[in-house]
Amino acid sequence: MPSLLSENISLPAAVVYRSRLANNLHWMQSYADSQRVKLAPHGKTTMTPRFFQLQREAGAWGITLASAPQAIAAAQAGIDRILMANQLVGKANMQLVAELMETTGVEFFCLVDSPDNARQLGDYFHQRGLVLNLLIEMGVPGGRCGCRSEDEARQLAQSIQPHPGLNLRGIETYEGVIGGPDACDKIRTHLEWVRDITLGFQQQGLFAHPQAILTGAGSAWYDLVAEVFGDTPADRIIPVIRPGCYLIHDKGIYMQAQQQVRERLGDNCNVAGDLQSALEVWAYVQSLPEPGLAILTLGKRDCAFDAGLPQPSLHYRPGTEVPVAPPEDWEVFHIMDQHSAMRVSPSADIKVGDMIALSTSHPCLTFDKWRQLHIIDDNYTLVEQVNTCF
Amino acid sequence: MPSLLSENISLPAAVVYRSRLANNLHWMQSYADSQRVKLAPHGKTTMTPRFFQLQREAGAWGITLASAPQAIAAAQAGIDRILMANQLVGKANMQLVAELMETTGVEFFCLVDSPDNARQLGDYFHQRGLVLNLLIEMGVPGGRCGCRSEDEARQLAQSIQPHPGLNLRGIETYEGVIGGPDACDKIRTHLEWVRDITLGFQQQGLFAHPQAILTGAGSAWYDLVAEVFGDTPADRIIPVIRPGCYLIHDKGIYMQAQQQVRERLGDNCNVAGDLQSALEVWAYVQSLPEPGLAILTLGKRDCAFDAGLPQPSLHYRPGTEVPVAPPEDWEVFHIMDQHSAMRVSPSADIKVGDMIALSTSHPCLTFDKWRQLHIIDDNYTLVEQVNTCF
Repeated sequence: MPSLLSENISLPAAVVYRSRLANNLHWMQSYADSQRVKLAPHGKTTMTPRFFQLQREAGAWGITLASAPQAIAAAQAGIDRILMANQLVGKANMQLVAELMETTGVEFFCLVDSPDNARQLGDYFHQRGLVLNLLIEMGVPGGRCGCRSEDEARQLAQSIQPHPGLNLRGIETYEGVIGGPDACDKIRTHLEWVRDITLGFQQQGLFAHPQAILTGAGSAWYDLVAEVFGDTPADRIIPVIRPGCYLIHDKGIYMQAQQQVRERLGDNCNVAGDLQSALEVWAYVQSLPEPGLAILTLGKRDCAFDAGLPQPSLHYRPGTEVPVAPPEDWEVFHIMDQHSAMRVSPSADIKVGDMIALSTSHPCLTFDKWRQLHIIDDNYTLVEQVNTCF
Repeated sequence: MPSLLSENISLPAAVVYRSRLANNLHWMQSYADSQRVKLAPHGKTTMTPRFFQLQREAGAWGITLASAPQAIAAAQAGIDRILMANQLVGKANMQLVAELMETTGVEFFCLVDSPDNARQLGDYFHQRGLVLNLLIEMGVPGGRCGCRSEDEARQLAQSIQPHPGLNLRGIETYEGVIGGPDACDKIRTHLEWVRDITLGFQQQGLFAHPQAILTGAGSAWYDLVAEVFGDTPADRIIPVIRPGCYLIHDKGIYMQAQQQVRERLGDNCNVAGDLQSALEVWAYVQSLPEPGLAILTLGKRDCAFDAGLPQPSLHYRPGTEVPVAPPEDWEVFHIMDQHSAMRVSPSADIKVGDMIALSTSHPCLTFDKWRQLHIIDDNYTLVEQVNTCF
C-alpha cells in the first residue's frame, strides 16, 4: 500500500488521519445529541463532499455552506438539507439555487437581512414558480451582516410575509463576530436576545411553519449557543448549531477555542474524549544553508498562515522505522509562497531529504489550497484519497 | 455572449482583462529582448497552462516552476524547457521528473545547494539511466536556500562533476530575499558576486556545457539582474531572468516594485508603455447593515490578503450602462473567510446587489484560490475561461 514513510506520495501533501477524523465526527455529533440541538456542520471548512456524507451519516441534520456554488457541490454529493448561512445575491447565484430546487429534493435555506434582498429574491423565485426558505440574520453593531434591532427584523419579516416566492422559516445569527475580553457575557446576552426575538416572532405568527429554526454557532462558542438555543420548547423551535472546524480541528486557534469550551463546560460535558487535530501538511527539508536554519518545501501555497504559522509535529528520516516528535526548539518562523524557514539548534540531527509533518492553525485556509487530501491510518499508510470542491 | 454586466457569471469570480494580459506579456518580453537576456517567466504565479503557452509563443526561453508537480503541469501543456527554480527532493518528486524526462523531450533544470541532495539526485537519476541538469543555487546569509560562499559552491560543483547522472549547467540566485533600506546596493553587489563566480567556474571547466546558464530575478529587481547578468560574453553565458508576477501585475506590492524599477531605469527603458493590473475579483454587496458599512461576498477564500487588502476599483449596478470608479473613500478594511467589510460614506449610493470589482495585491495568492479564471474584453464580456493547475 502507498505510504508516506516509503515516499510514495509527492510532498508537500495534505494529510488527514482517519482515526482522528472519525473521533471528531462522533464527538461533536454526540455533543449535539446530548444537548438536544441539531447539528448542521459548516461545510465551507473542508469543502470535501466525502466528509459531508460522513457528517450526514453520523447524524447531522444538514450541512451548512457559504455560497451558491458550495451548496451545489454539497447537493451533488447527495446532501438533502442545505443551510446556506449567507445572503443569496445576484442573478447567476439565484439561478444556481433555483435549478437545485427544481432538479433535486434538497431542502434549502438561506439568510436575508434587508428588504431589498428579500424583494430581489421574492421576485426571482416567484417568477420561477418556486418558494425559497429564508432565515432572518440577526447581527451586532460593528459586526458583519444581520439586522441590528428587533424592529428592523420585524419590519423585514413583515416585508417577506406577502411574497408568494418566500417562506420565512426562522432566525439565524453568527456570534463569532463578537470579541473582546468580555466576549462570553456579550455573546450570551446576544444569544438570549436572538432567542427571545425568535420566540416572539413565532408567537406573532411571522414564520411560515409552526416550528421555527433558530441557528447559530461557529466552532468557538457552540456550547453557549447549544445552551441558550437549546433552552426552548421543542414543539416551537428547532435549535441548530453550525460548527465546522471541529471535524479537522487544529493545533492553533481552534485548539485554544476548544480548551475554552471545555473550561466553560467543566463537569457538564457528558461526552467522553475530546477533539483531535486531524490535519497535517507533510514536507521535505530541502536545504540546510546555515547552522540552525532549515528550509522546507512548504509555503503559503500549501497551508494557512493567517492564524499562526504551521509548526513541526513529526520528523521522519526515510529508511528509519517511524516518525518521532521533533525537538521542542524546532520552530517555523517565516513562510514564503513556496518555502518555509524553520529554526533548529545548530547541532540538530536534520538532513536534506528528511520529512517534516506540520500541524496548522485555521483549517479552512489550509484546505482551500488542495484539490486532493490523503487519508492515512495511524501507520501513515494511505487508505483513501478524497477530492475537495473549491 | 456571457457578460459580467448581465450577471451571467456567479460572483465572486476572478477576472483577467485580455488586453492588459497581452500588454504585460509583450512588455516584459520586449524588455528582456532589449536587454539581450532570456526570459523564463515564473509560472508559479498563475499556474495557468494556457498562459504558459502564451508566454512561450511570445518568445520566452522557457517557463520557471517551483515544484515537480508544477513542472509536470507545464510539460503537459507542451512547454519544452522547464527551469524548476527549487531543489528537487524526495523519491516521489524525483520519479515525477524522471518520467517527464523519459516520456517527453522537455529540457529540465533544477537547483542544488548541498552535496547531500546532489548525491541523492545523482544516485537516483543514474540508476534510471538519465542525466539531470543542475544549477547551483547561491544564497545570502540570513536568506533562503543557496550556498553562502564561493568555496562552498566550488566544493559542491566538484562533488557533482564525477556523477554520471548529473550535469552541472550553471548558477542560480534569487535576489528577492535581500531587503532593507540599502537593498538596491546589496542586490547589485550580490549579483556581481554571483556573476563573477559563474564566469570563474566556467573558466575552470566546472560546467558540463561551454555556455553556462546564469539566472536570477523575481518581479521586483529584474532590471538589476538583466543589467548585471546581461553584462557577460554571449558565447560563455546564457543570462536568464525569471519574473512571474508581471503577467498579471497588481495594484499593490508589485505596482510599487515596478514604480521603483521605472525610477531605476529612468530614460534607459526603451520599451513603450508599462505593466497594467490585469486581475480583478468581482463580488456583490450582500448587506448594508449599518450606515457606512458594506459587506461584500468575497473573503480570504477568494483573494490574497497578505500584502494589503483587496480594494474597490469599479462599482456597477445591474441594469445601468457601465461600471464606474467608486468614490475614493470606499475602502475594504477587514477580510474574513467568506466576507469582506468595506467602509463607505453614510450617504453613499450603494445597494444590496451592486457589484464591486476589486483589485488585489500579490497575484500568486489570489490565483491559487481559483480553478477557473474568466478572461474578459474591455466591455466585460467573457471571451475565454482558462483553468489553473494548482
